[in-house]
Amino acid sequence: MSTTATLRSLNVDNINPHVKEAKYAVRGELAVRSEEYRAKLKKGHPPTPPEDGLPFDQVISANIGNPQQLDQKPITFFRQVLSILEYPKLLDNEDALKKGFGYEQDVIDRARWLLKEVNSVGAYSQSQGVPAVRESVAKFIERRDGYPAEPGNIFLSAGASSGVNTLMNVICSKPETGILVPIPQYPLYTATLAVLNARCVPYYLDEGKQWGTDLEAIREAHKKAKSEGTDVRAIVVINPGNPTGASLSSEDVRAVLEFAAEEKLVVIADEVYQTNIFVGIFTSFKKGLRDLQKAVPEKFDNVELVSLNSISKGMVGECGHRGGYFELTGFDKEVAAQIYKFVSIMLCPPVIGQCLVEMVANPPQEGDPSYPLYSKEYNGIKEGLHTRALALFDAFKKMEGVECQDPQGSMYLFPTVTIPEKACQQAKSEGRQPDEFYCFRLLDATGICVVPGSGFGQRPGTLHFRTTFLAPGTEWVGRITEFHKKFMDEFRDETGHG
Amino acid sequence: MSTTATLRSLNVDNINPHVKEAKYAVRGELAVRSEEYRAKLKKGHPPTPPEDGLPFDQVISANIGNPQQLDQKPITFFRQVLSILEYPKLLDNEDALKKGFGYEQDVIDRARWLLKEVNSVGAYSQSQGVPAVRESVAKFIERRDGYPAEPGNIFLSAGASSGVNTLMNVICSKPETGILVPIPQYPLYTATLAVLNARCVPYYLDEGKQWGTDLEAIREAHKKAKSEGTDVRAIVVINPGNPTGASLSSEDVRAVLEFAAEEKLVVIADEVYQTNIFVGIFTSFKKGLRDLQKAVPEKFDNVELVSLNSISKGMVGECGHRGGYFELTGFDKEVAAQIYKFVSIMLCPPVIGQCLVEMVANPPQEGDPSYPLYSKEYNGIKEGLHTRALALFDAFKKMEGVECQDPQGSMYLFPTVTIPEKACQQAKSEGRQPDEFYCFRLLDATGICVVPGSGFGQRPGTLHFRTTFLAPGTEWVGRITEFHKKFMDEFRDETGHG
Repeated sequence: MSTTATLRSLNVDNINPHVKEAKYAVRGELAVRSEEYRAKLKKGHPPTPPEDGLPFDQVISANIGNPQQLDQKPITFFRQVLSILEYPKLLDNEDALKKGFGYEQDVIDRARWLLKEVNSVGAYSQSQGVPAVRESVAKFIERRDGYPAEPGNIFLSAGASSGVNTLMNVICSKPETGILVPIPQYPLYTATLAVLNARCVPYYLDEGKQWGTDLEAIREAHKKAKSEGTDVRAIVVINPGNPTGASLSSEDVRAVLEFAAEEKLVVIADEVYQTNIFVGIFTSFKKGLRDLQKAVPEKFDNVELVSLNSISKGMVGECGHRGGYFELTGFDKEVAAQIYKFVSIMLCPPVIGQCLVEMVANPPQEGDPSYPLYSKEYNGIKEGLHTRALALFDAFKKMEGVECQDPQGSMYLFPTVTIPEKACQQAKSEGRQPDEFYCFRLLDATGICVVPGSGFGQRPGTLHFRTTFLAPGTEWVGRITEFHKKFMDEFRDETGHG
Repeated sequence: MSTTATLRSLNVDNINPHVKEAKYAVRGELAVRSEEYRAKLKKGHPPTPPEDGLPFDQVISANIGNPQQLDQKPITFFRQVLSILEYPKLLDNEDALKKGFGYEQDVIDRARWLLKEVNSVGAYSQSQGVPAVRESVAKFIERRDGYPAEPGNIFLSAGASSGVNTLMNVICSKPETGILVPIPQYPLYTATLAVLNARCVPYYLDEGKQWGTDLEAIREAHKKAKSEGTDVRAIVVINPGNPTGASLSSEDVRAVLEFAAEEKLVVIADEVYQTNIFVGIFTSFKKGLRDLQKAVPEKFDNVELVSLNSISKGMVGECGHRGGYFELTGFDKEVAAQIYKFVSIMLCPPVIGQCLVEMVANPPQEGDPSYPLYSKEYNGIKEGLHTRALALFDAFKKMEGVECQDPQGSMYLFPTVTIPEKACQQAKSEGRQPDEFYCFRLLDATGICVVPGSGFGQRPGTLHFRTTFLAPGTEWVGRITEFHKKFMDEFRDETGHG
């Protein structure tokens, strides 16, 4: 406690202990240090030592899936429409827009229609989101799954994080409430459960099977939690996986839904990476559920599912616009009404973000004037991600003591690292986890910021880190390889065991 | 409980009871019904009876301070810059922008600078907000108060609501934690305290003194709460007032700060209406505190203050963009670090909203090419608000059994209504509060949606409603007057007592 603490109302010992317990490594100490380095470099700090110079000339934030901070350009169609929504008077001179700036007729038409529906992007919308946007989202879901979707069940949100926060607030009714969460996981889940003083019921993903869900592991975790008095109410699945990059098979999806039906669990399907798939096809939980309901209605008709999606990921990467949605399936009406009230306290999601959700759900189609450019940009981003994922994967394969699953989807790789005993001891003496120690060393040496596996959870005795494959080029991959070699050489023990 | 409830994981009896307890009338049943009417009218529903026709042809949402949903036009400078931020390629043809669309050089310069600082509005920013934006906010505060401000103490947020939510999450450590909240209040405060299972310690504002703060009332409320075992940690002040429209004197501000210093309370100053002032001048709590610290440092140096501001209000009215900030003064460093971690779980506020915060803090100045238009728009909005406030006030003065304080600021009037006993009985038979009954009748008869005083809290035995004065024209004011007369006639009792 600081000496002045008792003079104040608030000190770290008397604020909400559950906030204190929450951990969020993705934007923690490593990220903060990387921002300090970035600021130093911006101020023209000498990039080469001596003294306090830095041994790199660029910070690479591979700690967070933030495509537009790095290389990725926004998709033209979306941004042209948004520019008009921000300044509708651009429509007073369509000719100049077209000739001077290359706006196509479908850009103008879409902007006019959205303006009619939202009135002004500076006005609050309905708490649940603009009705017309929810209708477009419903149609998108119908096309994707081949089953009907209802705009009334769709809630627009400020990114998927805000949706998760809403759902967890409603579900977590007491300290014994538990939610099954995959390990490793995106730390939003454990952080939110900590703040809400509810229990995380961890189930391990199967690294040996491309980080797939392992029904036996889920069953065991559930049984153990129940035996400890936990009232397990929901299961989180992240597909494609974060941080793992895994893409679940339709069998895996079905198995989770069957388990949820048996145990009466809400399924929280975090599907924000649904278009980031390199291998196989994406099976949504909604489609999986509807298929099962068709086959065995009496068993599946009352399964409750929340599916979350976001404009931050996919080929869109519009993180800064904070847009997303969740769809409720099978929810009790009164519970849905409480969800509505909860979101209404924060008024509404950003309206520009809502309009972007509309366009992502309903992009230009073949034959539309903007389609050729849209399609070129979209595919270019998709190919770029795949190329970089493979380059990184190839580098990891060659690194001593590093093992990595094939890239399947999302924006991440999550390799296992074997860290020499000497390095583990050094980490301990600095009060850090070994993987965290490794990541700090990597940052200090190369300017590359990744997140240690301990920030996501990992099986005891294993160590990992998560890196995005968003940074441009492959030169930085070489910097990781080089650092790793030096690190291993520095800490290699005398017996020759890495 | 619905019949299928037990088949599901979630029903209204087993979800978070604290979410259920929260009330948020501003977007409750009345608002929902008004949206249904709006949808009906949009579908070309016959505006005149018979059958289920509506007796009005327009819904007026006077329930929420949402200027751009009604008459108010966005300020050109802000939106021109935002259009460029959304589509930076507009900068490739500056000439066409200037000649074809009237963009001035300062619009272009500001957009270039903001783009340099944020890189892309589609990228996540730092969790606390873009550093350059926080610097502009700090300079704005310095100019306003005549005292230094630190960018490091400023947290950008998705509107002020999100800031309040953050602070309450950090402060409320247990069910006995209490926060002093003015009554009447904006229901965000009571709703958030309910969700967090902490105690609202209500203190009444003094309707007889233009809804000012009454130190005796605060002292009494605090004492009573302490005697009931409440650990009172903070006091909320809304200045200018919502729903009351009051503007506090510098003496009132000082008195609250003195009380906070004596009782070691965090002051939460909701100052989102700081430029919406018709009478007197705005005294910020920050300036009040710095003045007191200069005079009596030993007493005031450790007072903790949070001041909140927003781009939704003022003459800006950009609600849909969800932008705002809060400034911490006197906070313990470790507590501030926990606040940082908490906000980082939700990643960052909308970046376009952050850019708008920057421009609101740092608008065109005299001599800048955009200044004449900016100034004309700004003053036009200000005068319009004042004119309509006075028109509404004059109408209320003439209505039987209605009393209203002089309009001083914010966007609201909060008149007292005397409701005849027969109407109160009718309300009771319909399971409604009398003021709520009155507001439903008003909506059904006129399409005008206001919020009953019970949604904000009021002294027992008094009844009010809150209306914004944002709707265009004054014709709708006449509709209220006419409705009120009919209502009073319908429910007047035989003895002639209203």
